[in-house]
Amino acid sequence: MRFLIVGGDAAGMSAASRAKRNNPDLDVMVLEKSGDVSYSACGMPYNIADPDRDMNDLIVRPAAVFREKQGIQVLTEHDVQSIDPKNKLISGASLKSERFEYGYDQLLIATGAGAIRPGLSGFELPGVMVLKGLEDGRKIKRFLATNEVKKVIIIGMGYIALEMAEALRARKIQVDMVKPRPVFLPWMEQGMAEAVKVGMEQKGVRLYPGHEIQSIDSTGNGYQVVCSDLSLKGDMVLVAVGVKPNSRIAAAAGLQLSVDDAIAVDHGLRTSDPNIFAAGDCADAYHIVTQKKVWIPLALRASRAGWAVADNVCGKNIRLQGVAGTAVFRVFDFEVARTGLNAAEAAAAGFDPAAVTIEARSRAHAHPGSSAIRVYLVGDKRSGRLLGAHMIGREGVAHRINALAVALHNRMTVENFSQSDLAYAPPFGPTWDPMLTAANQLVKKL
Amino acid sequence: MRFLIVGGDAAGMSAASRAKRNNPDLDVMVLEKSGDVSYSACGMPYNIADPDRDMNDLIVRPAAVFREKQGIQVLTEHDVQSIDPKNKLISGASLKSERFEYGYDQLLIATGAGAIRPGLSGFELPGVMVLKGLEDGRKIKRFLATNEVKKVIIIGMGYIALEMAEALRARKIQVDMVKPRPVFLPWMEQGMAEAVKVGMEQKGVRLYPGHEIQSIDSTGNGYQVVCSDLSLKGDMVLVAVGVKPNSRIAAAAGLQLSVDDAIAVDHGLRTSDPNIFAAGDCADAYHIVTQKKVWIPLALRASRAGWAVADNVCGKNIRLQGVAGTAVFRVFDFEVARTGLNAAEAAAAGFDPAAVTIEARSRAHAHPGSSAIRVYLVGDKRSGRLLGAHMIGREGVAHRINALAVALHNRMTVENFSQSDLAYAPPFGPTWDPMLTAANQLVKKL
Repeated sequence: MRFLIVGGDAAGMSAASRAKRNNPDLDVMVLEKSGDVSYSACGMPYNIADPDRDMNDLIVRPAAVFREKQGIQVLTEHDVQSIDPKNKLISGASLKSERFEYGYDQLLIATGAGAIRPGLSGFELPGVMVLKGLEDGRKIKRFLATNEVKKVIIIGMGYIALEMAEALRARKIQVDMVKPRPVFLPWMEQGMAEAVKVGMEQKGVRLYPGHEIQSIDSTGNGYQVVCSDLSLKGDMVLVAVGVKPNSRIAAAAGLQLSVDDAIAVDHGLRTSDPNIFAAGDCADAYHIVTQKKVWIPLALRASRAGWAVADNVCGKNIRLQGVAGTAVFRVFDFEVARTGLNAAEAAAAGFDPAAVTIEARSRAHAHPGSSAIRVYLVGDKRSGRLLGAHMIGREGVAHRINALAVALHNRMTVENFSQSDLAYAPPFGPTWDPMLTAANQLVKKL
Repeated sequence: MRFLIVGGDAAGMSAASRAKRNNPDLDVMVLEKSGDVSYSACGMPYNIADPDRDMNDLIVRPAAVFREKQGIQVLTEHDVQSIDPKNKLISGASLKSERFEYGYDQLLIATGAGAIRPGLSGFELPGVMVLKGLEDGRKIKRFLATNEVKKVIIIGMGYIALEMAEALRARKIQVDMVKPRPVFLPWMEQGMAEAVKVGMEQKGVRLYPGHEIQSIDSTGNGYQVVCSDLSLKGDMVLVAVGVKPNSRIAAAAGLQLSVDDAIAVDHGLRTSDPNIFAAGDCADAYHIVTQKKVWIPLALRASRAGWAVADNVCGKNIRLQGVAGTAVFRVFDFEVARTGLNAAEAAAAGFDPAAVTIEARSRAHAHPGSSAIRVYLVGDKRSGRLLGAHMIGREGVAHRINALAVALHNRMTVENFSQSDLAYAPPFGPTWDPMLTAANQLVKKL
C-alpha cells in the first residue's frame, strides 16, 4: 500500500515518519516542491538576526536521513500540479521540467500556506522579499550579506513582520513598517496593542499604519514604497502581508474548501474524498471554544495533524479535538500571547461576552527586577465560561498562557478557573498569579 | 457583629480586608502575636541575599494603614492563648504581659505554622536561627551584619533551606547542609533530585544528607553541628527542618484536628465549631486529585482561604475546591516545580500509577541559549487520568507547571491533555511543548 504525501514540511514529514514507525512495510512517499524538507520555519527571523548563523541550522532532519535511515522516498523539487481522485493518481513536474505521475492508496495533502503577494507594480523587483520557505530566508540573508542594507521597509504588521523588525534591528538596520489598515494588531485588546506599539517605537522602528500601498518603485540604488500620502525609501522591502492556504490543487480535484479557502477536514483529518487527508497550514480545524471551523495555521497543529493522519492511515481512529488558537511571539522586550476568542470574536460566535484587562507585576511584592504584566480575559455572561485571553509582559507570558488554553479545552467557567491552585514563588509572580487576579475581576462582571 | 481574627499574616489580613470591604459596618478585629502583619514571608531569603535591602521592604501594608484607612482594629504583640467556644471569648496576654479578653460572634483562627525546633542541646544558642516570621529574618540579617560570618551550617534541605543556601552564597558565604534522611528531595523524581543536587554542589554548597544531628555546640568563636559520624563548624547555624501547624489553642478548645495536626475545615473553611473558621497554614484542605484531607501550607491557599472566610462571615456561601499542591522554587540556576501526586503518593491514594520522565529543550531546535528541561508525569492506568507532575529546568518551568495544575483541577486524562493546543515560538520551547512530549510518552504506558 502506498501512502503518498504532497508537501514535506511540518505536517508532511511528521506524517511520513510516524507512518513508517507505525508500519515499516508501508510504502511512504513524499513529494516536495522546494529543495528543503523538515525545517523550523518559525526560527527564520531569529536566524536572520545573526549574520554568522547558517540558514541550514534550521533543518531538523535532512531528506537524506528520511531516505536512508527511515526508508521514506523523499522527492524534493517535485511540484505536484494535479490530483485525480477517481484514478488515485497525482501528477506534476520536477524542477528540471520532467513530468511525473504517481499512484496512491491514501493521499495526504500537506501543501502548507503561501505568502500573499499583492498584484501591484514592483512587487517582483529583486530586492522585494517574502519570508515563507527556507529558500526565502536564504535569499534574504544573501541579500543582506551582499548589499549595504541600512534600511528595510516592511509591508505588513503581523507576527512575522514584527519578528523580522526585531531581527533587522538586531543587525542595526533601520526599519519602517507600513500597512493599509489603521489599527495596529487589530485582534488584540487595544490598550495592550498600544503598549507593544510604543515598545517598538522605542526600539527605533517607525510604524505607519493606515496607508494603502500603491506600488514599489526602483530608485536606482534602492526601493521606494509608494502610498497615496506617503513614500518610504529603503535598501530592501519585505512583504509580510499574510498567508493563504495552498489549496488550489485540492480545489481543482473537487475537494471541499471552507473558511479562508482552507481544505475542509473532519476531526480525523479526512477531506471530502475518503482516500485523501489534509493536514497543516493548508487545512482547516474545529475551534475548541466555538466548535466551528477556523483556519489558524500554526506549527504544533501541523505536526499533531500529521501524526493523526499517519495513525489513521495505519488503521487507528484518531480524532483531534480542535484548536484554541494559542499563540505567542516575542517582539523586542515583549512577550505577546493569546488563546481563544477576543470579545468581538465571542460576540460574533453567539456568546454574550464580558471582558476585563488588569495590570499586575511579573514578580512578588518588593522582589527586584519586576515588570508589568497585563492580562485580558473574556468570559460568557450566560454560561460563565472562559472564552479567551491575551497577555503581554516582559517575562512570564509565553508559558502562562498555556494554563488558560488548558482551561478552554475543559470548557471551564471563569469562576472555576479562579480557584486554580497555581504556583507561587517571589521570583516568578505575585501570590495571586495575574491570571487569577484577572479571573477574580471578571467573575464580578459575569 | 464582631469578626475576630487570630493571626495577622496572609490568611488573617486577607480575611480582615475583604470582610471590611464586604461590610464596612462589621467590627473587624485582628490579634497578632508578633509585631508584624501582612508581609511577604516567602520573600525573606531573597531579601537576606542583599545586605542593602531593608527587611521592612517585605511589608505589604503596615498595621497603621489597616487601622486608619480600613477601620480594622489591629492589635499586634497580642498573643491569644485560649479560646472559649461556649462563651465565644478569646483570652491571652500582650508582650507587656497585660492580660486581655475579647468576645466574638465569628472567629477566624489564622495562626499559621511554626518552625520546628528539635529539642536537642544547643538549639537555643544565640547564633542558631530559624526563618519563619519577619522578626526571624531581621535577626538573621542583624547577625550577618554584625558578625564576620564566613560559613553557615544549614540543618534541613527543604524549600526554605535551599532558598537560604542560594541567598547565603549570593553573599559569598560558605554553606554546608546536613539532614538526617539520606535522600535529597525525597518527594521528587530521583533523577531530577540528583540534577538539583549536582547543581547546588557546583555552586559550592556541600551537602551531607543521612546524618542524624545530636547537638549544636558553641566553639567559642562559632558553632559546631555534631552528628555521630560528622561534625560541621560554622559561624552561624540555620535550622530549617520543617514547619508544623500552630493548632495548639484550637486543639485545647476542643476543635477537631486532622492530618499533621492541622485544624480540620470543610470546603467553606468551617471548623468543627459552627462559629469558628480556620484558614492559612494552620488549617487542612481537600486535595483536588484524591479528594482527601492534606496539609500543604502555601501562600496562595492562605490568601484565598482568608477571602472565602470573609465572604462566608458576610453571608455568602463560598466553597473552595481544594489544593493541587502546586509549588515552585528557584535554587541557583534551577526552577523546580511540582503539582499533584508523585507515583508513590498516587499508589498510596489507591490509584494504579504509571510514570514517565522525559528530557527536552527549553527553546526550539537551533535556537540559541537553549537548556535542558525535564518533565515527570504520573497517570492512572485504570482511569487514564493525569495525577501529577514534576519539572526542572533553567528557564520556563515556573509558569509551565500551571497548565498541568489546571488539567488536574479538571480531572483531565493524560490523552486529553496531550491534545492541548499550547503556545509555541522558538524562544520559548520546541513545537511540541515538553509537557506534551511527556504526555505523549505517558499515554503509551496507560
